[in-house]
Amino acid sequence: MTLPFGFFIAAAIVIALLSFAFAVWLYMWVKKQPSSNARIAEVATYIKEGAYTFIKKEYIMLAKFAGAVALLIILFLPTPIWMGKPWENVGMAAAYIAGTVFSAVAGIIGIRIATIANMKTAEAAQRGIKPSFMAGFRGGAVMGMAVVGSTVLGVALLMLITTNTTMLLGFSFGASSLALFAKAGGGIFTKTADISADLVGKVELGIPEDDPRNPAVIADNVGDNVGDVAGMGADLFDSSIASMAAALVLAGVLDKGTGSLINSSMVLCYAATGLLASIIGVFLARMGKGSPTSALNKSTYITTGIFIVLTAIETLLFNFDWRIWGASMAGLLVGVIIGIASDYYTNDERKPVRNTATASASGPAFTILSGVSYGFISVLLPLIGIGVSALVAYKLCYPIGEGYAMFGVAMSAVGMLSIVGMIISNDAYGPIVDNARGLAEMGNLGDDVLEITDTLDSAGNTVKAITKGFAIGAAGLTVIALLGAFLSEVNEAALELGIEGIKGFDIMDPTVFFGMLVGAAVPAVFSAMLMLGVDRNAQRMVEEIHRQFREILGLKEGKPGVVPEYARCIEIATSGALRELIPAGVVSILLTIAVGFFGGVEAIGGFLCGNIVSGLLLALFMSNAGGLWDNAKKYIESGHGGGKGSDAHKAAVIGDTVGDPFKDTAGPSINTQITVVSLISSLMATLFLTFSIFR
Amino acid sequence: MTLPFGFFIAAAIVIALLSFAFAVWLYMWVKKQPSSNARIAEVATYIKEGAYTFIKKEYIMLAKFAGAVALLIILFLPTPIWMGKPWENVGMAAAYIAGTVFSAVAGIIGIRIATIANMKTAEAAQRGIKPSFMAGFRGGAVMGMAVVGSTVLGVALLMLITTNTTMLLGFSFGASSLALFAKAGGGIFTKTADISADLVGKVELGIPEDDPRNPAVIADNVGDNVGDVAGMGADLFDSSIASMAAALVLAGVLDKGTGSLINSSMVLCYAATGLLASIIGVFLARMGKGSPTSALNKSTYITTGIFIVLTAIETLLFNFDWRIWGASMAGLLVGVIIGIASDYYTNDERKPVRNTATASASGPAFTILSGVSYGFISVLLPLIGIGVSALVAYKLCYPIGEGYAMFGVAMSAVGMLSIVGMIISNDAYGPIVDNARGLAEMGNLGDDVLEITDTLDSAGNTVKAITKGFAIGAAGLTVIALLGAFLSEVNEAALELGIEGIKGFDIMDPTVFFGMLVGAAVPAVFSAMLMLGVDRNAQRMVEEIHRQFREILGLKEGKPGVVPEYARCIEIATSGALRELIPAGVVSILLTIAVGFFGGVEAIGGFLCGNIVSGLLLALFMSNAGGLWDNAKKYIESGHGGGKGSDAHKAAVIGDTVGDPFKDTAGPSINTQITVVSLISSLMATLFLTFSIFR
Repeated sequence: MTLPFGFFIAAAIVIALLSFAFAVWLYMWVKKQPSSNARIAEVATYIKEGAYTFIKKEYIMLAKFAGAVALLIILFLPTPIWMGKPWENVGMAAAYIAGTVFSAVAGIIGIRIATIANMKTAEAAQRGIKPSFMAGFRGGAVMGMAVVGSTVLGVALLMLITTNTTMLLGFSFGASSLALFAKAGGGIFTKTADISADLVGKVELGIPEDDPRNPAVIADNVGDNVGDVAGMGADLFDSSIASMAAALVLAGVLDKGTGSLINSSMVLCYAATGLLASIIGVFLARMGKGSPTSALNKSTYITTGIFIVLTAIETLLFNFDWRIWGASMAGLLVGVIIGIASDYYTNDERKPVRNTATASASGPAFTILSGVSYGFISVLLPLIGIGVSALVAYKLCYPIGEGYAMFGVAMSAVGMLSIVGMIISNDAYGPIVDNARGLAEMGNLGDDVLEITDTLDSAGNTVKAITKGFAIGAAGLTVIALLGAFLSEVNEAALELGIEGIKGFDIMDPTVFFGMLVGAAVPAVFSAMLMLGVDRNAQRMVEEIHRQFREILGLKEGKPGVVPEYARCIEIATSGALRELIPAGVVSILLTIAVGFFGGVEAIGGFLCGNIVSGLLLALFMSNAGGLWDNAKKYIESGHGGGKGSDAHKAAVIGDTVGDPFKDTAGPSINTQITVVSLISSLMATLFLTFSIFR
Repeated sequence: MTLPFGFFIAAAIVIALLSFAFAVWLYMWVKKQPSSNARIAEVATYIKEGAYTFIKKEYIMLAKFAGAVALLIILFLPTPIWMGKPWENVGMAAAYIAGTVFSAVAGIIGIRIATIANMKTAEAAQRGIKPSFMAGFRGGAVMGMAVVGSTVLGVALLMLITTNTTMLLGFSFGASSLALFAKAGGGIFTKTADISADLVGKVELGIPEDDPRNPAVIADNVGDNVGDVAGMGADLFDSSIASMAAALVLAGVLDKGTGSLINSSMVLCYAATGLLASIIGVFLARMGKGSPTSALNKSTYITTGIFIVLTAIETLLFNFDWRIWGASMAGLLVGVIIGIASDYYTNDERKPVRNTATASASGPAFTILSGVSYGFISVLLPLIGIGVSALVAYKLCYPIGEGYAMFGVAMSAVGMLSIVGMIISNDAYGPIVDNARGLAEMGNLGDDVLEITDTLDSAGNTVKAITKGFAIGAAGLTVIALLGAFLSEVNEAALELGIEGIKGFDIMDPTVFFGMLVGAAVPAVFSAMLMLGVDRNAQRMVEEIHRQFREILGLKEGKPGVVPEYARCIEIATSGALRELIPAGVVSILLTIAVGFFGGVEAIGGFLCGNIVSGLLLALFMSNAGGLWDNAKKYIESGHGGGKGSDAHKAAVIGDTVGDPFKDTAGPSINTQITVVSLISSLMATLFLTFSIFR
């Protein structure tokens, strides 16, 4: 049967509301878990307050920024206000603001639950690994459900209000631009604190991780929340919306041809089904006899399985095209390939990590060289995977008719991101149990509890490498689809302006090639600026930690009653992150605009392409190299190649310190960077078409 | 007046012979410089023998490889032998072999003179800096003249024998494939020795650089010759031929239209003029009142000036098109931009080096993070420069007629590489004076002499950063032109096969996009494999040095008469380099072929594009980061931020060790890698057009 579009909108809204209800239920469940340790409650309050302070300051700053952008949108986008249609510009600005607000709310919800779940997880560990796992996982799932619920709800509402899919791009741009800065800010905060705490604590003084004497220890835990929970949530929120926006823009063009809204229906249907599958997967998740890692993986497999079966049934029921269903499955396939590749290069049972650990015995230079090398090699398989999957999706849908091929690519991104609710749940689990480990240490819960939280934490790290690869792959497919959306926006604008549209972007056109070279440089410059931010900021914080150990008498010796000034370190991380988070993003955006006004839409086509290619390359490299160094260090710490305190260990710690901003600041932020410039290009298509000096 | 093509061929041959005669004169001049120190003669003999041993083994290995490739060419290229024209295949194989032989001979000449000039330069330093500079510079110039003379002679002879420009691609492929392996082998050898000698000598034992007690010291000096002299010479030989080949292929197509050979004449004329300008520049080079750096730079400026004036006169005289002359000048412009950018990021009077030195005080992780970040940022300006210059050349020549635009891009590469004779002379100067420094130390020539050789050495390093940037930029423009040549080869083959040709490569075509993603991964994988080679090999050599210090009694204490077993270290560097040099190159070539047979010419178009973009990005990043770390270390050693022996210094040494294979093994080899796959694609155009499974 063929159902009207309204049915799918209604269904999407219902499922989104269901996910909110489920999130509330999970939230209440976590909250009612017992907790009684006063020391833990005290530290947890520090962490919560630190996180809220930072997030508040960050969002105030970003609100001003978003306000300024909204003003610019009213003036210029999608067409300059004096060229007619001012109401369209206001609508676009409203969609943009809505995108930023949805993203911010999702971030706040994430932090709210994470700063409760960390405490519950720590105390639950006293009752065993299973209850502790459940507290951590369900805490993360609150975030997962809230984020993906907002995605589906936001898009469905927007489609209900307006049929103009360009508005969706504005909404998506709002979400992305907030994610760009939130991730950069959170990433700089968290790694500033992490690196500084490790360097002074572990390396110089030889005190354990999370030792309460360390002035940076609370800042480090705050960082897990603002960087990993809020930042990562904003990132996947953004990818998820962008993939739907790209698909709906392309579907809109196709639906004009069919006279129905079947393709748009399909996008909403698949996305809502993915959310439903995630709800079921989260609900069923339990830790059985296996490890926490296998419990997390099992829930992912279950969710994926449900998604595959449900969409197949829907495709049959609602007369969707099987080829497009196949394209979605191709997207899921890349997810698997990237997961396997990330796992190989970051798993301590494989050659790359082990060889890096062995090389560390010859000194830190060899740790770095090995990690950089394996990181470079690790990009090959994922890039081939993304390329093949896009190719398969394209060729599969090509026979349906003109325009369907690119729609197929967009649907492969939607397919890959369909299970994002589950992915976020798994991912947010990581920082929660990491925090729980710190609380258990600071609350003196004893070695048995620490062993449990360590096991949970290590599962978080393993899963993180895979979900990060997933996020990058998803962004890859999404931006390929956004390239298609850009082309479609350009041609629509050309039609309105009465000038000739473009068919594609030829590499042999030197304007395209010029754009490509500049676009390729952007992710390198962007990530470098973030890393320099961490670098500068951590140097300031290391100085502060040294000062406290020097000036606060009895601190180093652990004299009872002597506490460090935690707030000073949080303050440094905050002010540094706020200062550094804007420039990198702004440079990327300005370069995009400059290239557009210089070389026109052709240069932008090349720019986006170069940006995607080098962005994926660098993001994969940095994430995998960072994960590899982290695990090489842990491998040595677990007693291999000299163990803790050996020269090899010292070298591995240096590798890990380099890897920290690679994998948690720069690498994953690149996803968002490429999405933002893709969206801004689509939004500015008319302007670039009208005003460009060298076209 | 319009002169016949034969005139230009004759003139090119005459100028090439002139450059050979000049090289012989320079060689005799260097050889007759006085030398009398027996100790220096002894060490110099060790170095010479080590270098010859390695080169001999390497070339024997490569001869077998080249033989196998020649056989494959006879069977398959340009068309499979059973599809007709077997004589064409034999010709192609002969051109290929000629290319490898020319390249090998140039390398041998370079090593021959370098292992004499090092000794002369060391002893000349006793008479002052000026004679010492002249010995070093003229030694390097022998290499410069021989290499560029061979380039011009080879191409002119080939054009005399056959008018089939595809043969030129075979010749160029021969030169490139030899360069690929020679550079990889030499690069692994030199950095294995350099890193190991530094790590054990400088860092662990605190003995000076070039201390004769260090078992790896001779291997380190051998490395300068086989890596920096022979490897770099092979690289620029290869770029230079490739740029001429690309330009002549495109000119050939245009000339069919004009009925004359005016465009081909222009290519030969400009290349020969560049060589003539280099001869004059080298002849006039003197060290005046300024520093050796300014002497080197001045000769470059003089050469460039002569080239600009002479080509302008020729353009007027011979009725060449002024627009094409303008395109050549655009190429020279990029050279300047890249030089400035490289200088900014590697000069110790600028922020990047100074900030990295400051960051080193907080530990090696910060040294690495700063260097990686500035290295990333350093790619922006050069990439914009290459893009703009290609764009200017294209737009400038577009109005001349169809096909001229891409010819303009090729001529900008020819323009940039025209002064390559001068560039090689400057570049070969570096390792010669580096060697001379070692000989002066080992020959106990005293502190005054060491100060002079240090000054000369430091000028070599400064110039090296700039010439390396130049080499990368030249390769960039060349491969863009080769992309044009590939397209032209494809269309020629399509015409013969009676199938439709292609107009360009559309990014929106997923086959192109797939190729692009894979192509982008190749330079990362290639450079990683080389670095892992150095990494593994250096670990073996460090072990050997430790063994010698442990087992040879009195060595550490410097007991008279006790010498280390230098030969064992040379043996390790040799066998390791020979084992590691083949795989990286072969993987790159096989991936190219796999993509071609999978996705056909469209996929290869994307592949080459992705390869160029990511190759330029990574090559610039690695060269600049490496140069920056080197100079940050030297900046600290000169007394800043703690000076020698401080923690900051130790951190900076680790940075430098990471940077060594970045800048001297992996980074510059990427040039050759992108050239090789571009050439192989053009050669296999017919095969990819005929046999591909997913086109």
